[in-house]
Amino acid sequence: MQLAEHLAEFTRRDWQTVSDPAERIRFALIGLGWFTEGRVIPAIAESDFCEVSTVVSGSSKKANRVGNEAGAEYRLTYDEFHAGEANERYDAVYIATPNATHLDFAESAVDFGKAILCEKPMEATTARAEKVVKACENAGATLMVGYRMHTNPAVRRMRELVREGFVGDPALVEGTMCQNVFETISPDPNQWRLDADLAGGSALIDLGIYPLNTARFVLDTDPVSAQGTTNSPHEHFSEVDQHVAFEVEFENGVTSACVASQYAAQRSQFTVVGTEGRLSLEPAFFGESQLTADFSVEPVDEVAEEFDYFADCLLSGRDPEPDGHHALVDMRTIEAIYESAERGNRVSVRM
Amino acid sequence: MQLAEHLAEFTRRDWQTVSDPAERIRFALIGLGWFTEGRVIPAIAESDFCEVSTVVSGSSKKANRVGNEAGAEYRLTYDEFHAGEANERYDAVYIATPNATHLDFAESAVDFGKAILCEKPMEATTARAEKVVKACENAGATLMVGYRMHTNPAVRRMRELVREGFVGDPALVEGTMCQNVFETISPDPNQWRLDADLAGGSALIDLGIYPLNTARFVLDTDPVSAQGTTNSPHEHFSEVDQHVAFEVEFENGVTSACVASQYAAQRSQFTVVGTEGRLSLEPAFFGESQLTADFSVEPVDEVAEEFDYFADCLLSGRDPEPDGHHALVDMRTIEAIYESAERGNRVSVRM
Repeated sequence: MQLAEHLAEFTRRDWQTVSDPAERIRFALIGLGWFTEGRVIPAIAESDFCEVSTVVSGSSKKANRVGNEAGAEYRLTYDEFHAGEANERYDAVYIATPNATHLDFAESAVDFGKAILCEKPMEATTARAEKVVKACENAGATLMVGYRMHTNPAVRRMRELVREGFVGDPALVEGTMCQNVFETISPDPNQWRLDADLAGGSALIDLGIYPLNTARFVLDTDPVSAQGTTNSPHEHFSEVDQHVAFEVEFENGVTSACVASQYAAQRSQFTVVGTEGRLSLEPAFFGESQLTADFSVEPVDEVAEEFDYFADCLLSGRDPEPDGHHALVDMRTIEAIYESAERGNRVSVRM
Repeated sequence: MQLAEHLAEFTRRDWQTVSDPAERIRFALIGLGWFTEGRVIPAIAESDFCEVSTVVSGSSKKANRVGNEAGAEYRLTYDEFHAGEANERYDAVYIATPNATHLDFAESAVDFGKAILCEKPMEATTARAEKVVKACENAGATLMVGYRMHTNPAVRRMRELVREGFVGDPALVEGTMCQNVFETISPDPNQWRLDADLAGGSALIDLGIYPLNTARFVLDTDPVSAQGTTNSPHEHFSEVDQHVAFEVEFENGVTSACVASQYAAQRSQFTVVGTEGRLSLEPAFFGESQLTADFSVEPVDEVAEEFDYFADCLLSGRDPEPDGHHALVDMRTIEAIYESAERGNRVSVRM
């Protein structure tokens, strides 16, 4: 295993097949939210093969402002886009509108014979996502979904290492994708990400999809079954999942356990544990995939701590804390987990 | 929030109530496996309040060898222990025999009026664990289960920080406890940890119990329901779970997603994500709880990568890889997870 080889030329574009193209791909950017403005436009400005010719927004004012920023000659409203205005001026569309509107934009783009780069999730529901695929296939249109992890060099190098056996047989995947949407995206409690109809869900469909999809990509496998638990304690999440924990079983026998949150502290990590080793990305999903340290603490002999604590209780005549009743709850929980694993049901923990 | 205050005097024993006791607690160590010999005996040698007076083993030879090492005057076989030999020579027993034998040793210890420190899991089944508790309660015997994380200062400081609101409202817990039992414990494929009757399970009951119990301790809450998936691809795990992924919902609304493995690369981590922050231990469960770094990689603008990859495909006339079919599988998996969350069932991913 040549670890050094993988980490040297870390950012190599092993997917690249062209150089110095005569013409760049001209994009129409549809939906000028924070990601398009803050991440996509600067990225295209630095890119080798792309340029922005057109911006499309629900608001003319926003289209003009962002169009100026991006140096995009053509600024369209959504209606103008659907009507086909200036459609000879772009080769491809990037769809970054609310999830439930991706299909409509994709259908128009297909009608205009354009290639499509559609943000994830592909749509708000599977049924509508299926229509996106069908529309593109019927017309022979190119469709890519914006899983930016696939072209993230950290993820690609991780995938190569897994393929070459660096971790032995992959066994388990852990993944985390948590953000505070009100800090990271927008403080607006009425933003579409919190609207069930427009978004189709929140923590899972918007964020949990990162570790889910990255596991599929890194392990070259697809899911067989899934279990999940959602939880929405905050008032702004009355329609959608604020937190989610889920488990996915993959075709190759690997199981993943992931958590995601739309309103929690920012944290992302992605780890593959195999029989021989493990690989982690941390942070994983926020654009600068790294392995990081926070702080170090002084280790002690924890068994000495345990024993002396117990002895201290005895010597002072008080009861130690992790007692039998405490431990029984673990036993009952373990029993419930085993029963769940066998029956495939969520199982209540007996008290 | 006084982070510095928590991290200063990191190892303080906030549970300690005695000092300079006239007499130490004299232990009978029952079961002289790798943990007793390698971790408990050295810890007691360094401890302030404990001493080993007695060792108990299935083998006289082992009792003598380990007794010499530990400076234990009394060396008993299991039969001699149960017969009450030398039982005026110890105040407490430490039970570290195969899980399914804890009850028998606890019952004898109760008969002799001794205090009990019993390794986790308390027994191989809930039914037998309940008998341990009942026997101790009926006799008024002190019982503590050996959850060494409870007296680990890193865990205690983490718990204080959670209580004081350092992470805001706790939302999600991630936990991992994976080891290679053949390297860490013993290469013997016939060891009791792989025997369903003696162990009661493996990855979950022996290792998954760490993040499960640590979550309960750090969050001061107990489980409400659980889901789990076990997987045993390796031939030595025909009777017990090699890997497990599980999800536990707690009374306070926090959900955890954890993985554990008895035969995988060593890794442990434990993270609480809250609305305002997160706290992690890594490694968490192997005796030196720390937050660590592995290696750093050069960050790139991953959006530029994504866009150029897409453009490259168009310019070279080939199809990009994360296409609609690829993305549909995520949609179907997400649908299955949502359905599972609602119905409480494991849900198959439709293809």
